[in-house]
Amino acid sequence: MSEKLSRPDFETRLRAIGAERYHDQHPFHQRMYTGVCTIDEIRAWALNRFCYQRIIPVKDALVMARLDDIEDRRAWRERIVDHDGEIDDHPEGGLRRWLALTSQLGFEKDYVMSMHGVLPAVRYASQAYLKFVQERSVLEAVASSLTEMFSPQIIAQRVSGMLKHYDFITEDCLTYFSYRKSQANRDSLWALDYIDKHAVTREDQERCYDALRFKCDVLWTMLDAIAGAYHLGGTIPPGAWAPDHTLQVAKRSASA
Amino acid sequence: MSEKLSRPDFETRLRAIGAERYHDQHPFHQRMYTGVCTIDEIRAWALNRFCYQRIIPVKDALVMARLDDIEDRRAWRERIVDHDGEIDDHPEGGLRRWLALTSQLGFEKDYVMSMHGVLPAVRYASQAYLKFVQERSVLEAVASSLTEMFSPQIIAQRVSGMLKHYDFITEDCLTYFSYRKSQANRDSLWALDYIDKHAVTREDQERCYDALRFKCDVLWTMLDAIAGAYHLGGTIPPGAWAPDHTLQVAKRSASA
Repeated sequence: MSEKLSRPDFETRLRAIGAERYHDQHPFHQRMYTGVCTIDEIRAWALNRFCYQRIIPVKDALVMARLDDIEDRRAWRERIVDHDGEIDDHPEGGLRRWLALTSQLGFEKDYVMSMHGVLPAVRYASQAYLKFVQERSVLEAVASSLTEMFSPQIIAQRVSGMLKHYDFITEDCLTYFSYRKSQANRDSLWALDYIDKHAVTREDQERCYDALRFKCDVLWTMLDAIAGAYHLGGTIPPGAWAPDHTLQVAKRSASA
Repeated sequence: MSEKLSRPDFETRLRAIGAERYHDQHPFHQRMYTGVCTIDEIRAWALNRFCYQRIIPVKDALVMARLDDIEDRRAWRERIVDHDGEIDDHPEGGLRRWLALTSQLGFEKDYVMSMHGVLPAVRYASQAYLKFVQERSVLEAVASSLTEMFSPQIIAQRVSGMLKHYDFITEDCLTYFSYRKSQANRDSLWALDYIDKHAVTREDQERCYDALRFKCDVLWTMLDAIAGAYHLGGTIPPGAWAPDHTLQVAKRSASA
């Protein structure tokens, strides 16, 4: 059994995985922030990505259920509050902010919430993430959240690029991201502390790398699916949202 | 509650779903059997599709575990024998026949079995199928197998088209399909009888339609992912098999 790596070396390896596999390297992300996407591509991205956003607090509840320590659960609970909103005074949470974005892009809230228009590949990727945090060790479940180490940068690119290039994007509809940057920093620091403490052997650390690779794959696969269907000329699977259906059609099928 | 449809009407509706959503309608299938795929596209298809083949007997074991009736379980067990092979005299089964195909296309068996080169989207779609048969009703689990109503036709197109157009495809490497045609006929007739008997209400029948739609989505999504990565110029996600890696590289990473 090899000796456990020091915290700085461990972190360096984790960052190297992000540098190779995080979805800021994906050509579709680059299209988005450099302003070459059509409005329908941005719509498809926001609509599909909601499917992933929607499972995040569910994922966090599953992880929280597996944390034995009260302090750990309390810390993790913040993530759920961030997405679902406060119970009393501040019902605003990440999911509502995301719905503000899809709404500004022309989708009815009920249609987005129904997820009828989502690409099956995006649904399966989101489910794979839930399955992972249920079935793997708690260490791996926490490590899979470490993509948040890299998210402040991708968010900064998205926000400044999209505001600069698209007249249909305003600061109002990007409030989701302005909150996420500081939340992600806080969460990834906590998760790094946790896995550094709980990874006892080199093998444990390697399981953390695999967990981070898995999660990078999930995010990457969603952009692959969106790019395939809405940019590269692949199929839009039967039932998924199609740009040549007017948004009114989307509204009708939401109420059907 | 509406009245249950007659068997012929029920079957007509199921066939209409196949006509719209079964993957014989997918452009990548049409590329395959009309001979315009490159050998690397066929390789990617065979390699990725193995991931799906591999979960089929697992799926069948999960369904069998939920069938209460001895006769039903015995009938369903045939499916597992078809894929895993007989215990004693005839170890040849569908999975081995599929490995003969990937082998003839240049992949080492260990590399294929490891599934290291598989597209994450294909892995997630296969997992989604397992999840479906575990979590939905037995009726829906059985109904999701009904894509086999349509498979004899797609198999006939594949076999004759691929033999005609590709000099790297021989009859030997397509034995998987010659067995599947009669197996699929037997299985889909059994499954139709089962769901006709066990769908008591119109609502039950509608759940069967949804199950068949779900399964069509799984198959369609796999072709979307393969076409995106290997034909349409999308990304090949980090870690997935890349044609410009020689097959020797695939062999090396299999033994690494």
